[in-house]
Formats: sequence, C-alpha cells, structure tokens
Amino acid sequence: MAEKWVYLFSEGDESMRNLLGGKGAGLSEMTRAGLPVPPGFTITTEACNAYFANGERFPAGMWDQTLAALRHVEAQTGKKFGDPKNPLLVSVRSGARVSMPGMMDTVLNVGLNPQTRDGLARLTGDERFAWDAYRRFIQMFSSIVKEMERRAFEDIMDAHKAKAGVSRDIDLTTDMLKAIVADFKALYRKEMGADFPEDPLQQLQEAIRAVFASWYGPRAYTYRERERIPHDWGTAVNVVTMVFGNMGSNSGTGVAFTRNPSTGERKLYGEYLLNAQGEDVVAGIRTPSHIEDMARELPEAYQQFVEIAARLEKHYRDMQDMEFTIERGKLWMLQTRSGKRTARAAIKIAVDMVAEGLISKEEALVRVTPDQVDQLLHPNFDPEAKKIAENRGDRLAKGLAASPGAAVGMAVFDAKKAEELGKNKTPIILVRPETSPEDVAGMNASKGILTQHGGMTSHAAVVARGWGIPCVAGAEAIRVDEIKKQFSVDGRVIREGDYISIDGTTGEVFAGQIKTVSPRYQEEKELIALLGWADQVRRLGTWTNADRPEDAKAAREFGAQGIGLCRTEHMFFQEGRIPIVQRMILESLTAAPIERRLGDLRRHVESNPNDENAKRELEKLEQEANQNPSVQAYRKAIADLLPLQRSDFEGIFEVMDGLPVIIRLIDPPLHEFLPSRLELTREVIRLECNNGSQQELEEKRKLLDAVSALAEVNPMLGLRGCRLGILYPGVTEMQVQAIFEAAINVTRRGVKVHPEVMIPLVMHVNELKVEQTKLEKVAKEVMEREGMNLPYKFGTMIEVPRAALTADQIAELAQFFSFGTNDLTQMGLGISRDDAQGKFLGQYLDRKILPEDPFQTLDKDGVGKLMRMAVEGGRATNPNLEIGICGEVGGDPATIEFCHQIGLNYVSASPYRVPVARLAAAQAVLREKRAK
Amino acid sequence: MAEKWVYLFSEGDESMRNLLGGKGAGLSEMTRAGLPVPPGFTITTEACNAYFANGERFPAGMWDQTLAALRHVEAQTGKKFGDPKNPLLVSVRSGARVSMPGMMDTVLNVGLNPQTRDGLARLTGDERFAWDAYRRFIQMFSSIVKEMERRAFEDIMDAHKAKAGVSRDIDLTTDMLKAIVADFKALYRKEMGADFPEDPLQQLQEAIRAVFASWYGPRAYTYRERERIPHDWGTAVNVVTMVFGNMGSNSGTGVAFTRNPSTGERKLYGEYLLNAQGEDVVAGIRTPSHIEDMARELPEAYQQFVEIAARLEKHYRDMQDMEFTIERGKLWMLQTRSGKRTARAAIKIAVDMVAEGLISKEEALVRVTPDQVDQLLHPNFDPEAKKIAENRGDRLAKGLAASPGAAVGMAVFDAKKAEELGKNKTPIILVRPETSPEDVAGMNASKGILTQHGGMTSHAAVVARGWGIPCVAGAEAIRVDEIKKQFSVDGRVIREGDYISIDGTTGEVFAGQIKTVSPRYQEEKELIALLGWADQVRRLGTWTNADRPEDAKAAREFGAQGIGLCRTEHMFFQEGRIPIVQRMILESLTAAPIERRLGDLRRHVESNPNDENAKRELEKLEQEANQNPSVQAYRKAIADLLPLQRSDFEGIFEVMDGLPVIIRLIDPPLHEFLPSRLELTREVIRLECNNGSQQELEEKRKLLDAVSALAEVNPMLGLRGCRLGILYPGVTEMQVQAIFEAAINVTRRGVKVHPEVMIPLVMHVNELKVEQTKLEKVAKEVMEREGMNLPYKFGTMIEVPRAALTADQIAELAQFFSFGTNDLTQMGLGISRDDAQGKFLGQYLDRKILPEDPFQTLDKDGVGKLMRMAVEGGRATNPNLEIGICGEVGGDPATIEFCHQIGLNYVSASPYRVPVARLAAAQAVLREKRAK
Repeated sequence: MAEKWVYLFSEGDESMRNLLGGKGAGLSEMTRAGLPVPPGFTITTEACNAYFANGERFPAGMWDQTLAALRHVEAQTGKKFGDPKNPLLVSVRSGARVSMPGMMDTVLNVGLNPQTRDGLARLTGDERFAWDAYRRFIQMFSSIVKEMERRAFEDIMDAHKAKAGVSRDIDLTTDMLKAIVADFKALYRKEMGADFPEDPLQQLQEAIRAVFASWYGPRAYTYRERERIPHDWGTAVNVVTMVFGNMGSNSGTGVAFTRNPSTGERKLYGEYLLNAQGEDVVAGIRTPSHIEDMARELPEAYQQFVEIAARLEKHYRDMQDMEFTIERGKLWMLQTRSGKRTARAAIKIAVDMVAEGLISKEEALVRVTPDQVDQLLHPNFDPEAKKIAENRGDRLAKGLAASPGAAVGMAVFDAKKAEELGKNKTPIILVRPETSPEDVAGMNASKGILTQHGGMTSHAAVVARGWGIPCVAGAEAIRVDEIKKQFSVDGRVIREGDYISIDGTTGEVFAGQIKTVSPRYQEEKELIALLGWADQVRRLGTWTNADRPEDAKAAREFGAQGIGLCRTEHMFFQEGRIPIVQRMILESLTAAPIERRLGDLRRHVESNPNDENAKRELEKLEQEANQNPSVQAYRKAIADLLPLQRSDFEGIFEVMDGLPVIIRLIDPPLHEFLPSRLELTREVIRLECNNGSQQELEEKRKLLDAVSALAEVNPMLGLRGCRLGILYPGVTEMQVQAIFEAAINVTRRGVKVHPEVMIPLVMHVNELKVEQTKLEKVAKEVMEREGMNLPYKFGTMIEVPRAALTADQIAELAQFFSFGTNDLTQMGLGISRDDAQGKFLGQYLDRKILPEDPFQTLDKDGVGKLMRMAVEGGRATNPNLEIGICGEVGGDPATIEFCHQIGLNYVSASPYRVPVARLAAAQAVLREKRAK
Repeated sequence: MAEKWVYLFSEGDESMRNLLGGKGAGLSEMTRAGLPVPPGFTITTEACNAYFANGERFPAGMWDQTLAALRHVEAQTGKKFGDPKNPLLVSVRSGARVSMPGMMDTVLNVGLNPQTRDGLARLTGDERFAWDAYRRFIQMFSSIVKEMERRAFEDIMDAHKAKAGVSRDIDLTTDMLKAIVADFKALYRKEMGADFPEDPLQQLQEAIRAVFASWYGPRAYTYRERERIPHDWGTAVNVVTMVFGNMGSNSGTGVAFTRNPSTGERKLYGEYLLNAQGEDVVAGIRTPSHIEDMARELPEAYQQFVEIAARLEKHYRDMQDMEFTIERGKLWMLQTRSGKRTARAAIKIAVDMVAEGLISKEEALVRVTPDQVDQLLHPNFDPEAKKIAENRGDRLAKGLAASPGAAVGMAVFDAKKAEELGKNKTPIILVRPETSPEDVAGMNASKGILTQHGGMTSHAAVVARGWGIPCVAGAEAIRVDEIKKQFSVDGRVIREGDYISIDGTTGEVFAGQIKTVSPRYQEEKELIALLGWADQVRRLGTWTNADRPEDAKAAREFGAQGIGLCRTEHMFFQEGRIPIVQRMILESLTAAPIERRLGDLRRHVESNPNDENAKRELEKLEQEANQNPSVQAYRKAIADLLPLQRSDFEGIFEVMDGLPVIIRLIDPPLHEFLPSRLELTREVIRLECNNGSQQELEEKRKLLDAVSALAEVNPMLGLRGCRLGILYPGVTEMQVQAIFEAAINVTRRGVKVHPEVMIPLVMHVNELKVEQTKLEKVAKEVMEREGMNLPYKFGTMIEVPRAALTADQIAELAQFFSFGTNDLTQMGLGISRDDAQGKFLGQYLDRKILPEDPFQTLDKDGVGKLMRMAVEGGRATNPNLEIGICGEVGGDPATIEFCHQIGLNYVSASPYRVPVARLAAAQAVLREKRAK
C-alpha cells in the first residue's frame, strides 16, 4: 500500500507541523476545533522530499490521494472542480515547517477556464469579478508556474490603462478586462508555444509542482542558507477552497493579531479591506482600514472573529497572527500562527499572560528571547522616523551590528576633536577607519562609533559594548578619508559636522538625524518583573565587566551581582596617564634588569642569611640602583601611577558596596602603550631626509629603539599578562598596593569591599606561585600598616590552554578561576582575533567551516572542553574554588547555558548584557529541567 | 637514643650511597670486600642536613659517635689521634651523592701539631717530610677552615724560595720549611687574632664543620643550581686515616681507570707519581708517569693494583675510576667509582662488556646515553689541537650549542657570498646577526653557522639541525657588523676571509683553524651493534624530518624508517623559485577571491544541476577569469611551480624507496616569502625623499601595498596552514598533483612509494573535510589519468589545541595524525617561539618558573596531556590511525620516552637524531619494563 501523502484538514492537527508545515497544521487544528476554515487538504513535506528523490516525479499514490481529497472537498462544498455550473476553485499554497515569508509560491484561483469563469459570473452575478479573477489567474499561473516575466503582463495592463485613461486596476471595466485576457493569452502562446492550459486538473498538477519546485528556487535556497534551515525539511502544499473577499460590500479580507505586536497591548490589532482580496492588501494599493472599523461595517462577522481570536489565543496560549476573509458576510479563517512581535511586546505579553493565568512564570521566561531583552534596553530609532529616512534615501550603508542601540550626532573623524566637542555636550558620532587604544577618550565622549574596518571583536566593538555606546563596525561600503575629514559612500559625501544616525542593533548607517526612543530600565516594569522571576530560577550568578564607576553603576542597576573583570590597563589610557606609562616602559629597558637582579638577591639573602658575599653584593647593587637615573625614573613613574590607580579603585569599590570586585592586573603587551613602530620608522626617515630638527630626530630615534626592542612577532603570545609582573618588578606590586589602600580607605567610609586580585595569562602554576606570593605579601603589608584586615581573594584567569589542562595544580594556589575565553579561543583555535575577521574568519563562516564565530559564541567542542576540564580539575584539588567567565562570550545566551551546564558560579558580561544574562541563566535551568 | 650519624667503613656498603655519599659508599664497599682501604668512617648526609636545620650545630650524638668511631680507627691502626709517639693523622673529605668535582672541601693531615709532627719525624725517620706535612696542614687548614687568603701563604713560600734562590717546593730544605712554618703561624696569629689551633680534636671538629659549610658555599651552591642537584641532599664527611705517598721511592700515588676513558680500550689507563701526595698530581707541577711504569718501579704494588682493579670492575660491572696511594710499598685504595668517559668510550665499553659476558645487551643499552650517540656522530675538534688553540688564547666566545658538530672555515657575513664561495668548495662559516629564510641557500653552502642572536629554536638553529650543519647560535659576546663585514669580541676583530672554528656541540667559537676529527657512521661498528640491539627492543618507529633527497639519504643510513615530515615550503626557497612564489602571492590579492567564487559556483552547480542561473553565472565568471590578467598570472605561477615540486618529490621518493613519506602541504604565512614590511617602508620613504627613480618607487609601493595587505598582528595564529589551501585555490591542488605525478613516475622506474599527504594546522574537522575532499579528488584524477593505483594516505598535523581536543571527530577522516609539537607548544602555552627566547623564556628558565625549555623537551603536563587526549580520541573513532610526532622535540630522549608511553607509532627527528631516537626508544621500553 502506498504511503499516506495527503491529509484532509480534518485529519491533521498542530502536532503534525513537521509533516504538514505550519500553515497546514494551523488550518487542520482550526478545522478540528470547528472553526470556519474553507475545506481543503495538505500534501505533506515528505511528499515534497519524495518528489525530489524521485527525479521530480510525484511519488506513487500521491496524485490519486490528491484526487480523492479533492472529491472530499467537493462533497463538503457542494461544488465541483471544473464544473461550469458550480465550479470549485482552489488556492495552492506552500507551507514549510517554519515561516519563510515571501520566499515561496502560491497560486490562486486554480480551476478557472473560460467555462468555469462564465459559471462563476453566473453564480456571483458579477461578470467583472469573474473576468478579473480569470485575469489574475492567468497572470499568476504564467509567472509562477511557467516562470514567465511578470513585467510583460504588467506592461499589457499599463497599456490598456493608458489607452482608457485610467490609473487604478479597479477602474478597469469588464470589457477592458476581456481585452487584457486576450492579450495575456496571446503573450502566453507566443512565449510558451502552446495555448494557456484550460484543464483544471492539469492546472492543479502544475501548480503543485511549482510549489514543490519553489522549495529549491534560488530565493528560498539562499534564505535557508542564511537562516540555517535544513534543505531536507521540504515544503507541504495546501490546496484550499477559494473564498473571495472581493464579492461586494459584504465581503472583505484582513490580517489581525490578538494583541498589539508592537506594544503588546491586549487588544485586537490588525487591518482589513472591504471588498478586496488578500493580494490587494499585500500590494498596498489601497490603504486598509483598522480592524475596529469592521465592527461597524461588518458587525456580525467582526463579533465572530473577535470570539475566534480569543478562542485561538486561549487554545494556543500565545498571541496569534490570523488571516481571514469574509465572503458575502461569511467569515472564513485562512491562517493562524504565533505572531511575530517586537521585543517590548514579547516581554509585555509574556508578563501579562502570567497575570491572566494563561501561562506560568516559567513559560513566560522561555517566551522571551535574551536578544529581545537586549533590544529593549537600547535606544531605537522611532519606527516612523526611520521609515521616512529610508524613503528619503538616507540609508547609506549596513555594517556589523557591533554594539546595540541607535545614536545620532555630528560625524567627527578624529578622536581628539571628538573628545573636545563631546565635553561641550555636542552629540558626536566618531567615524574612523578603525580605532586603537589611543582613541578611547574620544570614543568615550561620543554618542556612537562608526568604523570602516574591523569585526565584531575589533577594538571599537569591544570598547563600545563595554561602555554601552552604539557602534557600527566594518561598514566596508564607506570610505573614510582621515585627511579630508569625510567619508563617501556611493558618491555621497559626509563631511565633518554633518549629522548622521547609526543603529548598532541592526548595523545601519543613515545620513541626517533620525528621532530615537530611549528606554529607561527602571520604567520597564514588565521587564523588571520578568527578570525578577528569572532571578528566582537561575543558579548562575550574573556579574559584570566594568572598568569605571559609571559602568559599574549602570551594571548594578541592571542587576549585576559583582564585577567579574575590572581591567586596570584601560585606566592607563585615561587623560594624563599615558605619558607616565610611556616613561615607565622606556626606562624599563635599562631599569627592569637591575630591579630583577635586586629582587633575586633580596630573596636569596632572605633565605640564605649566612651568605655574606650575597649581602655585600646586594648592598652594592642597591647603591648603584639608587644612583641610576633610569631606575629612579622607572620607580618614579610607578609611584606616580599609585595614587591614580588608588582613586580609580575607590570609585569602583564605592559603587559596588557589598559586592565582590575582581581586578585584573596589567595584561597587554607594553608596546600597546607606545606609538606604532611603522609610524615611528616613517617619521624618523622623513626627519632624516628633510634635515629636520636634530633634537626631535634624536628623541624619535630613541623612542623607535625602545619600540623596536619591545616589538614582537606575535604579541598575543608574547610578553604580557603575568609575564609583565614577573619581568617588570614594581608594577603589579604598585597595583596591589593601590587596590588594598583603596579598599581600606573606602572601608573607613563605611563601604563593604570584597577585592579579588586576578593574575592574568597564567600557563604554569609556578607563575602564579611567584606572583601570588609576592603580591599577597604586599597586600598583607598594607593591611598590617593600616591595622585593618579585609576579606580578599587571589586567583587567576584561565585563558591559556595549558592552564586549563593543569587546573588541578593551579587550583591548589588560586582561590578563584575566571575563564578568559577570548584568549582561550585565540590559542585553542590558533586564531588571532585581530587578524582573522578580514583574513579568513569571514570566509570560514560563509563556507560553514566554522558553524559560528567562536569569538561571539563559545566553541563548545574545543574551548568548552578545556573549560570543562578546568572546572573538574580545579574543583578536584580545591572544592571551594569560585569559577566564572569574563570573556566576551560571557554575555551570549548559548554560552551562558553551557556555563550553567558545566557548573560555573557566575558569568560576567558587559553592563548592558547583565539583564540578558539573567534571563539566559534562568532559561538554562528551565531547559535543563525539560530535558530531564 | 640518638640517631646513627656515623658509620665505620666496615658498616656501610654501596646501597647506602644516599646516606654515605659516593666516596663513603665506595670506601665501605671496598672495605667489606677486603680490599686495602685505610681505616676510617663516614658522617652521614643526614648529619649534614641536621647540622643546618639545627642552626649550624652538630646534631645530638654526632660528635660522641665521631669520637667512638675514631677510637675504632685507632684500634685498627694501632695509632692514636694526638699521640706524639705514634700519631694517627686523618684526612677529612667531603662526599656528596654525586660527584661535584672541585666544588667542595678536603682537609689533609688533621691531627698534626708540634708534638705529633715531631713524633711523625721520629717514626718516619724523615724530618723534612714531617715539617713539609705540617707546613701543608697549616696552609690547608687556614685557607679552607678559616677562609684566609690562599695567596698570602703562597707569597710567604715564594719569598723564602726567592731568598734561597730555588724555584721548586721540593728544593726547600727542612730549615727553610721551619722558617716558613714560623711565618705561617705569625700570619695566622695576625689575621685571626689567635694562635693556630694545636688540639687535634678541635682541628677535627673544625674541619668537619668546614666540610659541612662548603655544601652551602657559593661555588657548590651555584654548581648545584646549574646542574639541578637538590640542595637538601647534603654532603657526607669521610674521616680517613692518612696514608703518604711521599715517603720515599717505595711510595707513590695515582689515579687510574680500568679502561681507557677516551677510547674505551680494555686496558688499565692512568697516571701515577712516585714519592708524591695526591695534591701534587692535581697541582700539575710534576708530570706524572703512565700507570704502566709502575709495573717496573713498584712491581708488587702494581700487580696487586691490577688485580684489585679487575676485581672492582667485575664487582661493579662497570669501568672504574680509582685513586690509590702506596706508602712504603703498601697499596691503599682511596676511592673507586664509575668512571666518566667520552661518548666513544661509553659505546665501546658497553658493547665490549656484552661480548665479555659482563653485562646483558639490555644493560648495554641503558649504559649509553642518547646524548653520547649524538656526540659521536658529529665531527669534533681534535682534543690536542683544541688544547693548543685554548692555550694560544684563540677561544673567542661561547654561545648556544645549537646544532652539534665542529666546523672550520672562512668567516663570511653575507649569505649570497657564502653561496658563491661554498659552491667553489671554499669552506665557509656563515656569520650573521641572525638568519632568515632568505639566507637558506647560503646556509646550505656553509660548513657551519654562527649567529650573534637567537636561541636554540631560532631559524638558524632549526635549519642547521635539520641539515646536520654545525651551528653556534646566540653568541651574544660577538658583535657582528654586517656593513664592515666583520665581527669583534673583546676588542679582537675577525674580518671576512679570516678562518674561524666553531663547535656546535659545546657552543665554542675559536679564531683560526682547529683540526677536526670526523666520524663515519658506517665505520662505527660498536654503535651499529648497539643500535641493532636497540632496534630489537624498541616498539616506536624512528622516522625522520627531511626536505631534500640528501637529507633523506643521510637519515636512511642512520636507520630512518620513513619520512615523518617533508616540508614543501622549504623547496620554495630554492634558487629561482622565490620570484615565482612572490608572483603567485602578489597576484593572489586580486585572483584568489575570483578563484574562490569560481570554485564555489562549480561546487554549487555540481550539486544543483538544475540551477540554470548559477550555471549562467559560472559561465560568465569563467570567461571573466580567463581574461583577467591577475588570475592568469596567478595560475601561471602555480603552473610554473608544478614541475619543480614534482621533481623535488621524485628525488625524495627515490631515496626512500619502500618506505613511507609524509609530505606536508604549504604551511607558513605567505608574507614569509616576501620582503619585510618595515624594510620596504624604509625604502619607499627614502626613494620619496631622494626623488629616486619613479618606476622603482612605483614598484616598491605596489609591493609594499601587497605586503601590508598580507601583514598580520600575530602571523603565528593567522592565515597559514590549511587556511592557505582553503583561501588560495589551486596551490595545494598543484602540490598534490605534483606528489602523485612524482609517485607515478618513480613507480614506473621500479621504486616503491608510499606517499602520505599531510594537511597542516587543522583546528576543526570541517577544514580537513574541505581540503581532503578537494585533494583526494585531485589524487584520484591523476591516478586515473595515468592508469595507475598507488597506496596513499591523507592525514593531518595535530598542532592546534582544538585539534587535539576534537581528535575523535578529526580521526573519522584522517588516516594519520602527526603531532606538530612546535605549534602545539606555542598555542598550548601561549608562547611565541620567535619572541620568547630573548623576551622572557630565558628568564623563566633561570627562575625555574618553567623546569625546561618546552621547545627542547616536551611539556608533558600540558602539551603532553593534549597529545594523550588526541591519541585516545583518535584511536576511539579510528583504531587503525597511524600516529607520530614531527615537532622539534621528537628527537629529545625524554620526549621519545613519553611518546612511547602514550603509544605513538613513531617519532620523526632530524636525520642526525635518528640514531639517538633509536636508542632512546629502546631505553623507553627498558625503563617501562623496570618500572613494572
């Protein structure tokens, strides 16, 4: 016996979505619920797959089953397919598992030929209607089933309209329609070399084939590739009795949502057109009325529809998006499905439905996506204003959505200028080819950042996300000219001072000013309620990455329970500090070896108090060091940084009163604080050539020598992280002194502090041993001197693969681990984040060699495995080990779920991602429950 | 009861070496064997540790036990300590677990004072002897126990000699000795503020303290640090009855080995001095006689010594190094221990002893160290010639022993010149600040390489080891001046054309020519025998890393069983090829994206044969590509490389007839083939400034643009390895085509080939999927076209941590794994090999943060763990997976043992390391057996 390929609507239900597609399942479900659905049936997705497997032939039995189902429909409607007296017309509609809007094909009015057309005219008493339906059918069938050029048919229509001196379709008379049909048929004959098919069954068969074929059409194929929808899902085909909303003033058609999809308000929302067909709504030729007008115009049908809508929402326990048609006063439901909605609506609907007793809190938590929470929290363009800008043609480019939120300001091409203007409250969008650490002050003073180059993890993107500044990165279509201070795109030039608007949530760039709408977290009552429920459910702590008090404050408002990463080097870039840091670095070349030797000797003498030779040597070296100008300058620079760092920490401790703060000691390669080697080389040679100032030349040369001495082939794997602390005596000691002095100062002001000192880039337990021993000593000395004991922890980043592999050893010393997934990914996968985006990562993603960008969502098989090993290893030797994650991916929902699964204590994300993390952490628990 | 701190020689034995030290254990063992050992006892190493733990006080009971043991010795000798009538004199000698030559202290003649001196004079009837002994004792005690300046005593001696007009100690008369003693005592009184101690027990006590103290003396401390001997081992103290070899012509003293320690010849070897004390031998004032002379001069004692020597060797089953003294005809054994020996001797002795039935083959295999095998195989300086050069003061510097072997040649400072001269057979030592890939032709033409900078894994070192060329790297004492073509060291200047001699086994650099001795493997019969036994024992295969037929040939002679790594990019650096490679790279900027799009379209059309749009697009693009000059040039460059690579492979396949050859596809970042960006920038700006040729400027600018476009922040983690094959269509296809065409050509000539294609830098199975699919297709096409089927494999390097972590997935495709431990270490540890040596790795090793250089011996805890996981994961999904290692550490014995333990199939090492690997692999088996 042949497989079952065809299901009447009365045979299917919602659970058969994979087999019947979304539309078929919805129509079936409504049919079974006794709602007024035009009779019809569904040919399954499996039939579609079998069709292709079978060399594009219908699988055995399918056509027979189709004919049998058609007979059923005839019986239900009392009409007959192809019968001139009482013709049954059908629509043939695609319907995949998931909605693929506009990607696939539909053919209406199948079954029309001259005989049935005339029958239709007789039955409806409306000749024009019948001829118009026929005209539409020929047009649709030819273009969709036969792939003829749509344009040619429109040209014929236009020619007739011009001749008659009318402009709207509705003004075409029956005679004109007859003439058009004749022309259509002539065109068809000419192009296809055959007459337009008049056999309804042939029409049906070809329409079904066309819908199947559209599954592998280029549009649908590309869409699935982009949306990662498997090609082997196939599409179902729905054959539905035609109903007509254009049968006069007691007819109409519309779409409606059970709640407002934009705001979430609990009120029927939609539009309808009296005396029209669905395609007229879509074509946008007539402006539809608000659904409420229907109450007045078609009160009975409206009442029935309101009841059905309520019933459907209750049945599906979710907001529904419905299509309907009223044919001569009779309501027909053509589709129902869960409605798409804005972030705001999603949250409001979920929370409201809990209050209404429709869903549980846990259901509400899974109804909202973390991305929706993220969207809600950032400024957005006012949708109307954006539409106007688009219509004006002001949309310039689309780059990467690097840091969410919309921003408007004057384009400025220079970070220094942005800083000045920003201070005076001028709204600035900083536009750069790409940003570097030297630009941070200007970035901070800007409302938004736009870069031509760079990926989602470029400097601009990372800094902007950290500070909650909207950023569009890698907008490669624009050409930034730093010298002329302008950018151009497709011949259009934006000059310094011109206003632009960017949307970091979508990556869009506009010329001019677009009104934005800024949410305030404290006013988002529904969100606050939802996240409150999330907090009750989740096990993971949600901490934040914040380097400045203002960021910490924002994060705390968003519910951060601690700081998981406070980067101290960002502080070095603040105003007035860079010269001190540079002085320290330049003198280190001479001073550091001396300081190291001194430290070694001191330690040796300490553990060998009898070694008189060493004592003498130490004394001598101490004297020499005291007289060495480099050593003195080096020490002075470090000493100058102490009070600055101390006050940085005080500010953060005060904001985080009562919560833990993890401070990471200096991490980046020192040459990041110095000018570029290439640039300096250029300057030196130019000065040499131009006989420039000798003094300047000497200074530049000296600087170049220092920069060259510090240069590394692969700085990412070079002298950075804890290696700095070990090789440059005094630096991390100063930082720890500042941390503990700050902690003591704020404690005296009544603040509760929990400092945790984080040592970066540890690969071997001995590094931690050396640094932690040295630094705990400093901490204890400060506390002893000040007569105060504070709770504190020392711990390490786990960001080098070896650290994860030897976590058991490291956890014997460390009191906490924090996964630095950026570096762990770089080293684990052998990908330099700075280089990869443009060089090969984009290609790798396009080619699906990597399923996801591993810097945006955790690579679970690789990096995740290292993390799992580190958690197991670390807890084995130190059961109390506190473990978190502070890499960029810590705010990514899929990563958060993984962190939950492997038992981390917390995730740390940028401030604006904290609410996202709260929800994602709760969802992880709920998914885990469901899986059990 | 107090612990036992003191053991009579009759109480100890060889098994108590840790407690009694090497000397004490040897003396005890000989005593128990009934050999003539002067009575004495040993104070244990534990006593030494207790002494320091106890605040430098003897532990409870130690002194009492010492006195009791002294009483025993008195009873055995019939003499009494401090007795003027028949005085017992003792030596107090250090003796740690392992020999620390010259690092610790000994005091002779303890127990002498005016009374016992006179007693000694009476007993011996030799007043001069007694006074001379007393003079020696005062001198030794003062300098060693009291740390007085040795020089002051020598000055007194010299003054007296000058006054008497004599020059040798032996010419001093008794009266002169008396005057010297008086002066010595006066000096002592003046310096120490007290009289020279006359109480023998006080002398003994202080001498014991002094030996203890010498354990923590700076010399010994530093030595232990360097040799990684634990400080808590402590030293034992041996108190031994004095015997005198200087009691006339029937007395003497000597040292001897049971076999020749230089050649291994089975013949007593040593020297002795008639009528002398041990210190006279050491002082080198009189030239000792050959031990055989003793047969004539002291036949009875000689006969006895020969018998004892034979007995000792048989007893210890190893060549012995013995000290003895003959006092008035009576032979006393003062020490025996296993003798140090040259590499050659070690191998000969081990093999001979098997023939003699003294040890088993397995024992022979563990008697020889892999390093000794290595040493034997390289040219060495003739020891005599080297000594002469040293005496002449021609030793210039000591750098890193980067590639073993001695070499002599003319210093040349320029690789091009080295290449020219080398071709004419002029022996060249290439001297460079450091080398780069562009120097390789010159390196290849040189006898040896000397660099000022760079570590054990610098470019020079790696290339030199690969080619078996001696290399001294990082000789920082020399200053290379490329422009003047000379180097200077301590004011001495070596100019181009001057001869120098380097020893890559020791790191030494000499001015002038030193005669070298070159071994030939085929003539090293003992080594061949030993390695034959090793082959029977080992389970690990020993393969080689070789890029050229001549290297492969050498390796095969050394017993290589396959090529584990043939680097194809080294071939690109050969003469005439670099311009082709550069052309390919420069055109790739335009051509590669087009080629990629073409490849994508082709694949799409192949799997979607109905997509007519795509077909049209493909056709169009193909036409465009065919007319694009960049694409054409790119394809031409690749095509030009094909025959060159093919002939490269043919050469190697021929040499490796019957054995597997793993060829790695192109691996390094492309900019390694281009000039440096910094250098080009300099040139461009100089040309701009100097209004240089416009055409040259344009060319350079274009080149600079390309180099800049290819530049990466961290090239190690950038666009290289399999990423090149994926992003630059045609390159790896060409390589695989060349491999299979070569394989077919040589097969037709009767050669048996087993090509294995290795895809580098895989981090995700999808990379392998893409490349392997593409390349296997090429291979099959070639074989089909040529109508020949060959056995072959496709596999991958495991050199990215993620590859090791996901080995189970990768092994589903790969037929073999080869661990690239260089990269695996770089990424696993976050250390850039190119940078680390000078920046922090040296410091890390000095500070023992890292126990070993992970680029020289495998980091077992970290990288080793990844390897273990990869082996387990890979074999889980592919039980037949062939697994080897081809990283630099593959020739390191400790690494080889680890590879054995985790079950690799083979290790692959540079040709000269193959014999080393054969032995190490056998030793791994033997150690495993022993551990069971």
